[in-house]
Amino acid sequence: MSPHPPHVAVVGAGECGDEEAARAAEVGRRLAEAGAVVVCGGLGGVMEAACRGARAAGGTTVGLLPDDNRARANPHLTVALATGLGEIRNTLIVRDADAVVAIAGGYGTLSEIAFALRIGKRVIGLATWDVRGVEAASDPADAVARALR
Amino acid sequence: MSPHPPHVAVVGAGECGDEEAARAAEVGRRLAEAGAVVVCGGLGGVMEAACRGARAAGGTTVGLLPDDNRARANPHLTVALATGLGEIRNTLIVRDADAVVAIAGGYGTLSEIAFALRIGKRVIGLATWDVRGVEAASDPADAVARALR
Amino acid sequence: MSPHPPHVAVVGAGECGDEEAARAAEVGRRLAEAGAVVVCGGLGGVMEAACRGARAAGGTTVGLLPDDNRARANPHLTVALATGLGEIRNTLIVRDADAVVAIAGGYGTLSEIAFALRIGKRVIGLATWDVRGVEAASDPADAVARALR
Amino acid sequence: MSPHPPHVAVVGAGECGDEEAARAAEVGRRLAEAGAVVVCGGLGGVMEAACRGARAAGGTTVGLLPDDNRARANPHLTVALATGLGEIRNTLIVRDADAVVAIAGGYGTLSEIAFALRIGKRVIGLATWDVRGVEAASDPADAVARALR
Repeated sequence: MSPHPPHVAVVGAGECGDEEAARAAEVGRRLAEAGAVVVCGGLGGVMEAACRGARAAGGTTVGLLPDDNRARANPHLTVALATGLGEIRNTLIVRDADAVVAIAGGYGTLSEIAFALRIGKRVIGLATWDVRGVEAASDPADAVARALR
Repeated sequence: MSPHPPHVAVVGAGECGDEEAARAAEVGRRLAEAGAVVVCGGLGGVMEAACRGARAAGGTTVGLLPDDNRARANPHLTVALATGLGEIRNTLIVRDADAVVAIAGGYGTLSEIAFALRIGKRVIGLATWDVRGVEAASDPADAVARALR
Repeated sequence: MSPHPPHVAVVGAGECGDEEAARAAEVGRRLAEAGAVVVCGGLGGVMEAACRGARAAGGTTVGLLPDDNRARANPHLTVALATGLGEIRNTLIVRDADAVVAIAGGYGTLSEIAFALRIGKRVIGLATWDVRGVEAASDPADAVARALR
Repeated sequence: MSPHPPHVAVVGAGECGDEEAARAAEVGRRLAEAGAVVVCGGLGGVMEAACRGARAAGGTTVGLLPDDNRARANPHLTVALATGLGEIRNTLIVRDADAVVAIAGGYGTLSEIAFALRIGKRVIGLATWDVRGVEAASDPADAVARALR
């Protein structure tokens, strides 16, 4: 049995309103409480809120940055990894994750949803793109329960 | 001025019916006639049809294969590149392309559409996913005209 | 100022003898004591020993695995990241690192040394490949001091 | 049987003297005459000379550019592929190639040699880095004969 906990990607926009941030933070917190590692793109908005929530609950957070250095990383990352891959890093977030929680989001989030479904990863959505195959969650608690099922 | 012609990605499913294949072949032919290089995932279905059409018109075709070798490449490729990256190679197809023509398709195609829009590449659609930002073309001639605009 | 500590890659073979393991463990321990994150390929040998040393000192360790899942990861990783990139993940280890410590090693280690020097990262060597540009360290303490200079 | 010809990577520095350029051009010419596709990094120096030689003999050449566009590509490429991956594109050149011919070169070339040996690809050297496992060729004719063996 692997000594390593599951990884759940939390994907969403780099800028977001208060409601989305609250949802993302609760998703992060609940994932941390369940022992899962939060993986994200390491920047602001939904990513930052999810990390903030996870860290406040003692969790581990990983940001796969598009950049060559850690300058733009949000401050709530256990590990800020500088990939230098630009938006291609999105595919690494998804490839690493055991499941993906998508919260609202733009084209980047849509690319992660589609890529995840393409390679057979489960995707749980909270008020995000309407794509067949995405499991719509009613709230953050439901999203995390589904992600860890 | 660059001595290199524009690259247009033709993305779609690895298996397709006769009508989609005919459309893809016409897109490939028209791109070749206009001097553009066809870039694709190098496998069957829409990819193969687009390459067949382009090559019949004397064009150049490039397949970025998910595999580590050339065994599964379609036979209509000027260059069959074995990336060994799996589905991540989708992002390289889009990153290289000056514009993207999407024909029908599944989750892989959706991931390419979304990734292209995310990094600011133009996407022309033929009976494909309905995503805002995709320019709907009326037929292959229109798709190619838009792609090369 | 970045809230994120420096990352130092520790690179070396996936199987190693006791002396190399002892060196790697001391490098890991000293990096952790200095507050640096240890980044490596996540497998056995030098990688595992460096992580073991770092974790015993309360440090943070990251393994960029070649695989699609976490099954082969060593148990001393704070974060076991499944890249699915095969040996290409070597370049991500180096790209992320602020400096590289190479301990003995084979071709994979040589590729990491050369790639690091190519992109202008500092490389400190402990009984490793003799390549101009690598700073030879006299012992683990010296290697860590040089890596964090 | 694959309808696709073998690919041989020609790796070396982006700037080179007349003697190296002449060697690279002859390697390119002989590979083209034997029906092999020349794969390289798409820039100047050894890469450009190899492509020039191959194209003059009617061959096919592919350049995997580090850049996001085709502006810096040498003019002797059948296909100039813009990867946007920076130096990581080196690993894709090697991963695609059936064999690698290294001509002189710096750290980038050394990283390609080491990476190729790591993943079990044959490496033929012409006045390049002295690494065990590299087959030293006496001249371009010998290098090409060995690469296609």
